[in-house]
Amino acid sequence: MNTGRLETFADGVFAIAATLLILSVDSHLGSCAPAGATLAHQLECSWPSYVAYVVSFLTIGIIWLNHHTVMDQIDHADRTFLMITVGFLMVVAFIPFPTRLVAENIQGDGARAATIAYGITLTLTAVLFNAIWFYAARGGRLLRPDADPETVRGISKTFVLGPWLYLALTVVAAIDHVAGAIGLGHFALVGGVASYDFERDHAQRRAGR
Amino acid sequence: MNTGRLETFADGVFAIAATLLILSVDSHLGSCAPAGATLAHQLECSWPSYVAYVVSFLTIGIIWLNHHTVMDQIDHADRTFLMITVGFLMVVAFIPFPTRLVAENIQGDGARAATIAYGITLTLTAVLFNAIWFYAARGGRLLRPDADPETVRGISKTFVLGPWLYLALTVVAAIDHVAGAIGLGHFALVGGVASYDFERDHAQRRAGR
Amino acid sequence: MNTGRLETFADGVFAIAATLLILSVDSHLGSCAPAGATLAHQLECSWPSYVAYVVSFLTIGIIWLNHHTVMDQIDHADRTFLMITVGFLMVVAFIPFPTRLVAENIQGDGARAATIAYGITLTLTAVLFNAIWFYAARGGRLLRPDADPETVRGISKTFVLGPWLYLALTVVAAIDHVAGAIGLGHFALVGGVASYDFERDHAQRRAGR
Amino acid sequence: MNTGRLETFADGVFAIAATLLILSVDSHLGSCAPAGATLAHQLECSWPSYVAYVVSFLTIGIIWLNHHTVMDQIDHADRTFLMITVGFLMVVAFIPFPTRLVAENIQGDGARAATIAYGITLTLTAVLFNAIWFYAARGGRLLRPDADPETVRGISKTFVLGPWLYLALTVVAAIDHVAGAIGLGHFALVGGVASYDFERDHAQRRAGR
Repeated sequence: MNTGRLETFADGVFAIAATLLILSVDSHLGSCAPAGATLAHQLECSWPSYVAYVVSFLTIGIIWLNHHTVMDQIDHADRTFLMITVGFLMVVAFIPFPTRLVAENIQGDGARAATIAYGITLTLTAVLFNAIWFYAARGGRLLRPDADPETVRGISKTFVLGPWLYLALTVVAAIDHVAGAIGLGHFALVGGVASYDFERDHAQRRAGR
Repeated sequence: MNTGRLETFADGVFAIAATLLILSVDSHLGSCAPAGATLAHQLECSWPSYVAYVVSFLTIGIIWLNHHTVMDQIDHADRTFLMITVGFLMVVAFIPFPTRLVAENIQGDGARAATIAYGITLTLTAVLFNAIWFYAARGGRLLRPDADPETVRGISKTFVLGPWLYLALTVVAAIDHVAGAIGLGHFALVGGVASYDFERDHAQRRAGR
Repeated sequence: MNTGRLETFADGVFAIAATLLILSVDSHLGSCAPAGATLAHQLECSWPSYVAYVVSFLTIGIIWLNHHTVMDQIDHADRTFLMITVGFLMVVAFIPFPTRLVAENIQGDGARAATIAYGITLTLTAVLFNAIWFYAARGGRLLRPDADPETVRGISKTFVLGPWLYLALTVVAAIDHVAGAIGLGHFALVGGVASYDFERDHAQRRAGR
Repeated sequence: MNTGRLETFADGVFAIAATLLILSVDSHLGSCAPAGATLAHQLECSWPSYVAYVVSFLTIGIIWLNHHTVMDQIDHADRTFLMITVGFLMVVAFIPFPTRLVAENIQGDGARAATIAYGITLTLTAVLFNAIWFYAARGGRLLRPDADPETVRGISKTFVLGPWLYLALTVVAAIDHVAGAIGLGHFALVGGVASYDFERDHAQRRAGR
C-alpha cells in the first residue's frame, strides 16, 4: 500500500488536534477571575490558556514536521505499520490535554500531578514514534530503495534516545515539577532540530552526487 | 466518478471523529470528584474518559483501515454508493458518544442502557459497512477489473457475519452488561484482523504471480 | 487555477461541519431530564439531538454530493469563484445550528422561531449554491470544454428553483411551523435526486457516444 | 520537499478554524437573555455570535485565498519555511477568539480590551504572513523558476505594509475602539483585493505571452 491516504489521515489528525485548543481558550476565559471582573482582567489572568495553546500548537506542528521527515524515507506501508501509526496519532492528539493542565496548574497545588501527566504523554509519544520508525527501518522493511543508509542510521541513533530522555524528565518532574516542566516543554519544542540536521545532511549529500 | 474525493471526505470524517474526543476528556475532568479535590485525585477518577478516548480512537482507526482495504478493491463510485458511504460515516462519527457512555457508566446504574446504546451503534456500523461492500461487490458492479475473486469472496464471507455478531452481543448486553460491553469492545478492536488476513493472502497471491 | 485545493478545503469544511454535531449530542445529554433521572430516561428524552445529528449529517452529505457533481463540470476557478465558495461553505457550516434548534423546539414555544431560522439558512444555502453555479456556467466561463450543454442546462433549470422553494417554505413555516419544518427537511434531504438524474443522463449519453 | 503535504495540513487548519466557530454560536445561545426568555428573543440578542461567525469565517477564507496565491509562486519548502508556516497557522487559528470578543463586547465595558486583543492578533498574522513570503522570496530562495518578477515585487510591496497598518489600527483601537474595530475588520475582509490584482495581472501577462 502506498502512503498517500495514511498521510491524509495523519495530517487531518495533526491539524485538528492543533486547532481544537482554541475552543479550550474560549471556554476557559474568565474562569480564573472573580465574577464581575473586567474583560481586560479576564484576558490577563487567562494567560496560561494562551501558553498552552502556543506550546500545544507548536509541539504538534513539530511532530508533524518530523513525521513528514520520517515518511519521506518510507516507500510503502503494511497493516501493522498503519496500526502503530493510529496509536501514535492517538497519543499526539492527547498532548493538548496535559499541556493545558501544566499551564493552568504550574503555580498551584496540582503542579506535580499535571507535570507528571505531561511527561507520561510525551514519553508515550516518543515510544510510539520509535515504534513507527524502527518497524519501518528494521532490515529496511518499508524503506525506499534509495533511502540514504547514513541518514537512516542517524535518525535511528537520535530517536532511540527520546523515550529515555522523556522518562528521565518525568522522574525529575515528580521531584521538582518546575524543572521537569521546563525540561519537557524544551525538548518537545526543540526536538525537531535533530531531524533538521539529517535532512540538511541528506540534501547536501544528494546535491553532492 | 473516481474515488479520490470520496476518500478525502471520509478521511476527514474519520480524523475528526477520532480526535474530537479529547475535548470530552477536557470538559469532563474533575466532574467525578467532589469540589475542592486535588488535581491528582481528579485525574485518577477521570480514568473512564481516558478509556473512552483510547477505545474510540482505536475503533475508528481500525474502521478507517478496513475502509481503506475495501476501497482498494473498488474502481469507481456512483451516487448510491456515495449516499451509503455518507450514512456509514454518520454512524462511525457517532461511535464516540456511546463509547463514553459505557466507560462512564459501566459501574453505575446506567450500565445497561449505555451498553445497549453502544451495541446498537456498532450493529448499525456493521450493517452500513455491509451495505457499502455488497452494493459495490454484487455482480462486480464497482470493483476493479483486476480485483481478486477469492479475496472478494473472503471479505464477503467475513463481513456478512458482522451485523449478526453485534446484534447478538447487544442482546447479551441487555441481559449481562459487563459481558456485553467486553464482547462489543473486543470485536470493535479486533475486527480488523480478518481483513488483515485477506490483505496478506492477496499480497502473497500477487507476489506469487 | 485548478480546483484541487479548493476541493480539499471544501471537503474539510463539509467533513468538520458534519462531524462536529456529535459534540452537541454529547453536551446536551440529559438537559431534557430532571436531575437524578436514569441514563435510560436521559437517552430517551434526548431524541431530538439524534434527529438533529442525523438530519444535519445527511443534509451536509447531500450538499457535498451535489457540490461534487457541480465541480465535475468545472474546469478551473478564479478568485471571485473562490470567494463565492467561501461564502457558500460559511452557510453550509451554519446549517447544524438551526437544525438542532428545530429538533429541540418543534414541540415547544420556540417552534416558530426555530423553523424560520432553519428556513432562512436553507434559503441562503440555495442562493449561494446558485451563485456558484451561475457564476461558473454563465457563458461557459469556468466550465470544462467538454461539459455537456444539455446537462448544464438541466442543472441550471433545477438550481434556479431552489431559493424560491426554500423561501416559500420559510413563509409557510411562519404560518404553520410543523408543515414548514417537514417541507424544509424533506427538500434538504431529497434535493440530491435531481442532480442524480443529471448525472445518470450524462453517464448514459457518454456511454452512448 | 514539495509543498503538497504542507498545503493539506494548512487547508485542514484553515477549514477547522473556520468551521469550529459554529460550536461557539451554539454554546452561547441565550446567554445574553434573561432566564425564561423566548427562543425568538434569545436568537435576536445572540446576533454578536453570528457577526463573529461571519467575520471569522470570511477572514480565514480570505487568508486561505491569499495563502493559496502565495503558494502558487513557491516551488518547494525547506524546514525553516515549514516552521514559519506552523507559527502562521497557529495565529490564524487564534483569530476567531478575539473576533468573538469584539462582537460580544463592542457595546459594553470590555470593548477596548477586546479590540486591542483583536488588533494584536491581526498584526501578528500579518507579521507571520510576511515572514512566510519574504523567507521564500528573498533571493528567489523557494520561488518557482518561472515566477514572474513583477508579480513577486508587487506582492512584496503590498505585504510589507500589512503589519504597520494593523499595528497603527491597534493603536487607534486603544484610543477609539469603535473606529479601531471597524478599521481592523475592514482590512481583514478586504485585504484580499491587493493579491487579487496581482493574480489578474499575472494571468493577463501569461495570456499575453
